[in-house]
Amino acid sequence: MKFKIASGILSDGLKKVEKVVNWKHNIPILQGVYMECTPDEITLIGSDSDESLRYHIPVDGENVDVVTPGKILLPKQAVELIKKLKGEIVLEREEHILVIKYGKKSQFSFVTSNVEEYPKLPEINFDGPSLILKGTEFSNVIRKTAFAAAENDIRPILMGLNIIANSNELIAVATNSHRLGRVILKKGTDKEKQVVIPAKVLEKHLKIFDLEKDVNVYFGSKNQVVFKNGSLVLYVRMLEGNYPSTERLIPTEFLTEITLNRLELLETLDRIGGLSDDGKTGVVKLQIRSGVAELSTNHSQIGKGIEILELQEISGDNEFSVSFASKYMMDALKSIDDDYICFKYTGNLRPFLVTPSSGSPEIEETQLILPVRERDV
Amino acid sequence: MKFKIASGILSDGLKKVEKVVNWKHNIPILQGVYMECTPDEITLIGSDSDESLRYHIPVDGENVDVVTPGKILLPKQAVELIKKLKGEIVLEREEHILVIKYGKKSQFSFVTSNVEEYPKLPEINFDGPSLILKGTEFSNVIRKTAFAAAENDIRPILMGLNIIANSNELIAVATNSHRLGRVILKKGTDKEKQVVIPAKVLEKHLKIFDLEKDVNVYFGSKNQVVFKNGSLVLYVRMLEGNYPSTERLIPTEFLTEITLNRLELLETLDRIGGLSDDGKTGVVKLQIRSGVAELSTNHSQIGKGIEILELQEISGDNEFSVSFASKYMMDALKSIDDDYICFKYTGNLRPFLVTPSSGSPEIEETQLILPVRERDV
Repeated sequence: MKFKIASGILSDGLKKVEKVVNWKHNIPILQGVYMECTPDEITLIGSDSDESLRYHIPVDGENVDVVTPGKILLPKQAVELIKKLKGEIVLEREEHILVIKYGKKSQFSFVTSNVEEYPKLPEINFDGPSLILKGTEFSNVIRKTAFAAAENDIRPILMGLNIIANSNELIAVATNSHRLGRVILKKGTDKEKQVVIPAKVLEKHLKIFDLEKDVNVYFGSKNQVVFKNGSLVLYVRMLEGNYPSTERLIPTEFLTEITLNRLELLETLDRIGGLSDDGKTGVVKLQIRSGVAELSTNHSQIGKGIEILELQEISGDNEFSVSFASKYMMDALKSIDDDYICFKYTGNLRPFLVTPSSGSPEIEETQLILPVRERDV
Repeated sequence: MKFKIASGILSDGLKKVEKVVNWKHNIPILQGVYMECTPDEITLIGSDSDESLRYHIPVDGENVDVVTPGKILLPKQAVELIKKLKGEIVLEREEHILVIKYGKKSQFSFVTSNVEEYPKLPEINFDGPSLILKGTEFSNVIRKTAFAAAENDIRPILMGLNIIANSNELIAVATNSHRLGRVILKKGTDKEKQVVIPAKVLEKHLKIFDLEKDVNVYFGSKNQVVFKNGSLVLYVRMLEGNYPSTERLIPTEFLTEITLNRLELLETLDRIGGLSDDGKTGVVKLQIRSGVAELSTNHSQIGKGIEILELQEISGDNEFSVSFASKYMMDALKSIDDDYICFKYTGNLRPFLVTPSSGSPEIEETQLILPVRERDV
């Protein structure tokens, strides 16, 4: 193996695939980045066995030029070095040694593990995606749902994002059983499928996706879901188990619907919700009366607070109160892009909905929050 | 106690004094910010008992207006709230309750501890500073020495910055016994004193100092050193014990003096030094021969690297080699502002010096590093 490359091009790829590499993985061969070059392209792979990232660099004979095809495993120190280099560099394999040369006489050599032991990625027919999403659609699906998944593994399946693809639409749901985020995208597929993907994995990797480009989704035959975005491919192992049916949990009739300014509500909750032991997960009471929304909290050890918000619109019952975790409400509000939100009330201890007030014809988004028992304020 | 204030003015002060507050301090009264208002000024104090910060806000009758003098202890949640508020706010004490009002009808109340128990700060006669430093002088003294202090308390006195003020100059030295940073400021005082101040405390608080303003230094009669910078006063408890004499450790005659480009050397060390287990503290060998500097490293488990640097100037022996911890050299280089540095060699296992190549008439700075035993490269 020998090739020369503009270091920035190789760094860009390494910075993406290393996101998934655990340099202290208990499988030694995964403690590095797999690199293979053919006359046509350089492939980089990082993997922690549950998730893998693959990145392609085309050979153009100018910024990237392959002398001898081959492959090698890049150890951490080699990856760190390449990210610091500028200008053209030459990478060459001599037995199990990786040699990196640059500048006038600078030369590094690294001891590497046996690349032949590196696990194969599942084979995917990249010509037939199950679904093609715009980058922004992919981002919206994750941004508006994944945060609502469970963080601990009391019920491991709830750490997943449940994706149902049918001939009419794509439905994504995440819930920790106290709150739920759901989006419905008006985009059908002839490859109907239901899969559960670890929510945190998608959230974590969203930032390395290029949202200007499409995301092709492949529901592989094995236990993998694959996302292709330009030169980058993300392989994720599905969660096993049956995702609970959530459809019937989401109310469709409401006692009251209120329109509120989203940022104003968010800032108020940030102040009110901060009045708690950990400064984050305070319980807040929302009381509607005399045409205003009163947000309050009360902790005997710390103190209490009250703020008044103007209602933009109200229909239905105009006096009620409900208590909820301010963090859940703030997460829901942050996932919405509209200036105004609609708060849909169904009863004192029944789940309520938060939705964008205008909404979009392409994506239907719903945030559900289960109230907590009210405390005296 | 009752006063009204533009929230930004109070926030600015709180953001400074809270730096020293440990909200979970084992002395409960220190888990808050002391606030006192008189007709003339509002005083904020944060303290963790070893170090304290005091901040003054003058009453101007416009942005700050005191209705009733008094004092109270601000709990964490009140401080967090005030930092989030905009516009004018009113703070009022009702028994042990702090009431904060703002906007149309918003109101918070906080349970507070008994402020009478808050420890008194040592009394200082602010009219007679022992020393007056320009903000930049104060910053330079700390920036060029404190990092070299010991990080662990095997010899607690070495965690300090040793300051010797005499009639001609101010000398500041820090060392962990493997490296040493020293500056000499041509600034005398008639209040001669030698004190040892925790180095990390000064480093940590440097960023809240306003370097456009002078720093008045007071060597208090008790075990405190006090730094006054505009509205801010920092009280630091001295370290007890005798600081070792370091004067005789610093060589004054050299076998070789070399001038090198500082940033070039720093970037080279960053690449070469990264070739180690933890990616930071690698040992690097510097070899001078044939008119160039060769920097290299060798780890049997990881690999090896070599880079060549041009010498700007050399005088004395023109062939030698020395090995050192790349982190120590990088820290020293980062503390220097000149484009070029002078490397002063005194023998293979003897301490060498790194100094700015041009230097300044106002401040004399010296970085000393003890080599490590050479390894074969």
